[in-house]
Amino acid sequence: MSKRNASRTKAAAPKAAKGVGARSSPPHTHAEQSSLDEFRRFRERMNSEILGENNLVINRFFALDTRTYERGALDVKTKELLGLVASLVLRCDDCVTYHLTRCAEERVTRAELFESLSVGLIVGGSIVIPHLRRAVDRWTELERLD
Amino acid sequence: MSKRNASRTKAAAPKAAKGVGARSSPPHTHAEQSSLDEFRRFRERMNSEILGENNLVINRFFALDTRTYERGALDVKTKELLGLVASLVLRCDDCVTYHLTRCAEERVTRAELFESLSVGLIVGGSIVIPHLRRAVDRWTELERLD
Amino acid sequence: MSKRNASRTKAAAPKAAKGVGARSSPPHTHAEQSSLDEFRRFRERMNSEILGENNLVINRFFALDTRTYERGALDVKTKELLGLVASLVLRCDDCVTYHLTRCAEERVTRAELFESLSVGLIVGGSIVIPHLRRAVDRWTELERLD
Amino acid sequence: MSKRNASRTKAAAPKAAKGVGARSSPPHTHAEQSSLDEFRRFRERMNSEILGENNLVINRFFALDTRTYERGALDVKTKELLGLVASLVLRCDDCVTYHLTRCAEERVTRAELFESLSVGLIVGGSIVIPHLRRAVDRWTELERLD
Amino acid sequence: MSKRNASRTKAAAPKAAKGVGARSSPPHTHAEQSSLDEFRRFRERMNSEILGENNLVINRFFALDTRTYERGALDVKTKELLGLVASLVLRCDDCVTYHLTRCAEERVTRAELFESLSVGLIVGGSIVIPHLRRAVDRWTELERLD
Amino acid sequence: MSKRNASRTKAAAPKAAKGVGARSSPPHTHAEQSSLDEFRRFRERMNSEILGENNLVINRFFALDTRTYERGALDVKTKELLGLVASLVLRCDDCVTYHLTRCAEERVTRAELFESLSVGLIVGGSIVIPHLRRAVDRWTELERLD
Repeated sequence: MSKRNASRTKAAAPKAAKGVGARSSPPHTHAEQSSLDEFRRFRERMNSEILGENNLVINRFFALDTRTYERGALDVKTKELLGLVASLVLRCDDCVTYHLTRCAEERVTRAELFESLSVGLIVGGSIVIPHLRRAVDRWTELERLD
Repeated sequence: MSKRNASRTKAAAPKAAKGVGARSSPPHTHAEQSSLDEFRRFRERMNSEILGENNLVINRFFALDTRTYERGALDVKTKELLGLVASLVLRCDDCVTYHLTRCAEERVTRAELFESLSVGLIVGGSIVIPHLRRAVDRWTELERLD
Repeated sequence: MSKRNASRTKAAAPKAAKGVGARSSPPHTHAEQSSLDEFRRFRERMNSEILGENNLVINRFFALDTRTYERGALDVKTKELLGLVASLVLRCDDCVTYHLTRCAEERVTRAELFESLSVGLIVGGSIVIPHLRRAVDRWTELERLD
Repeated sequence: MSKRNASRTKAAAPKAAKGVGARSSPPHTHAEQSSLDEFRRFRERMNSEILGENNLVINRFFALDTRTYERGALDVKTKELLGLVASLVLRCDDCVTYHLTRCAEERVTRAELFESLSVGLIVGGSIVIPHLRRAVDRWTELERLD
Repeated sequence: MSKRNASRTKAAAPKAAKGVGARSSPPHTHAEQSSLDEFRRFRERMNSEILGENNLVINRFFALDTRTYERGALDVKTKELLGLVASLVLRCDDCVTYHLTRCAEERVTRAELFESLSVGLIVGGSIVIPHLRRAVDRWTELERLD
Repeated sequence: MSKRNASRTKAAAPKAAKGVGARSSPPHTHAEQSSLDEFRRFRERMNSEILGENNLVINRFFALDTRTYERGALDVKTKELLGLVASLVLRCDDCVTYHLTRCAEERVTRAELFESLSVGLIVGGSIVIPHLRRAVDRWTELERLD
């Protein structure tokens, strides 16, 4: 595995977005999803197991997936927002969680986040709403980690 | 938020469908899904957080979503069945749960429910079966609440 | 093949819905879709070829598909509306065309049609709009055939 | 209909993106899609017919769809790229065509376009490739119109 | 219910694939999914409840689903791999789990499994990755049961 | 581009499957799809234009896509059937056409083809039927080219 992939393989460090003020919320249990920490541990463990199998196609795809979000004609933040909205309309909670973590690292503000989510909601319809709820819940969780 | 949306925002009261006889079932844990009560609490909490953000597009969409199922040329029951089957073929468990709750309120019978689910199964194929299982489990849970 | 299936295999006769007044429209070419007549001829020819292959699973599925929309606890019209909205949110133009033809036979009114389509639009989002356009275009074509 | 919606209802004027040099291509027929002009005419005609029906839910959704892409915390260009990639992964050619037209108006460069498409390809997989082909073909058609 | 369906209704016995050596793994909790045992109990209980309702369309569909994977021009193993990859690209974890269990019974090797999963990954894109993780986790769980 | 990709980039030579006898069919026009020849020309032209852009992610993905179907633990024929069924349940006509062409080259018989399609039909439901029709039409076209 290249270094590039490694950065995507390990869990993104949850530095909170600067543009976002502290939001006090009561502690609560997540009825709908496992914690961010559980998500990361499972993701890391399985990525290791999958990449360790040395299936050429799968390993190259994982590396390519990492390359996709690197800076080019578009900046990293824009690319992560593209990945986020694509994940939202395809309704993949884990993919949304991953891109939310990266968006927080790229200093996406809460207003920018909600506008991006609104595009996904209009394009994808009310079927997206349960995923929107979990996305906002994750984002608030990420803000608290700041 | 308008009153209309509020009615959709708060959890529908689980009055059981009249046409449905009492079904005695042993108490059991839900292996595949959180309880109806957890679903509602999470849904209400996140709807509040999302609507409180005052993103115009999202808030209008939520209001419009509520309007969609109001009585018009079609009655409310038919519209809820349309929402249910659309949610089933798109395989959104939370959306199915919501429409099942509304169907119970609109006095959909168990036979009508199974026929609606059968349309979703034929249109959507075997990939729908896991969602069909959870839908029937939810319906039985709603009947017990009657 | 059973008779039941035959009724679904042959193209539904485009008797126009009673509730729908004559709508004068200028003749126009369909930029986006083949004519209803072409659709039917292709459908019938391929159904014959497929069923003639005598693959047990496929032939039974076709027969079961027909059974799904027969009168039971729900009437035929409601079931066809369920099939229509399921087809719309899954964005299958040919499936939409088929159910529109059946809805016209079942005397669905234009107002009932638009309400059903509105459910599909809200559930499925703006991605449904191109299919909504073609659905309305088909419906107007069916009305002219009355 | 509000003015806002009107701007989205009428076909976007195909001013070519500045960042894109003239690309000489031999004239060719589009095997896979109708021309941009046919697309626009059909779109305008059907939008008129749909909005003329005065279904409240549908008309409000169309208006809201337009609002979604207006300038806010994110600029219009970024929002159009979000709409484009969402449309690509959901594999809706007409939606892709619409957003490509808007991207050309917002002066998206060919390199920015390809990077956005690459995100959609990686997220959505090889199933996206036929839509990628048609998207690039449309883009080249838009460049020639400059 | 026919015998055939019964074999699919009851949980497939998790005999481990011969081609797969013992893999020592530390015991771990599954962050993302319920245990295979919970999956089976829920599946069996709900299949009983659904089939007991005697909805003709649903019961015939379940029977037909079982027939689909029987030996014909293609052997059972190939058909189960087809079902597995179809389930993976449609991103249905429960369907993937079912076909993995059947693949293990049909002596699919770990290399064959990973190649099949790689096809699903390339066709379906990065959105498939979370399901790929859970699929590999399940497979390892099945191997331990050998 | 590597040679491997080239083989996938150029149109597969339509040698007919050996196991398939000559089927006399009257010449007919394809109401629903462009000819195989048009499909190929458009595909080749656009692949050239896309790869010529030298977007690293896109070009590597195209190369990886080709690698996916090479002989490994599974033979090429099985992998092409996996690609075919995945394409069918995701309802991508162009992807189905491509894999059908490859299946014909790999000497898939008509019975094997129909069994593979039957898996896709059961998994994906009636929404798959229009794509099944076009797939069978394409296969018959490929047989005639033998």
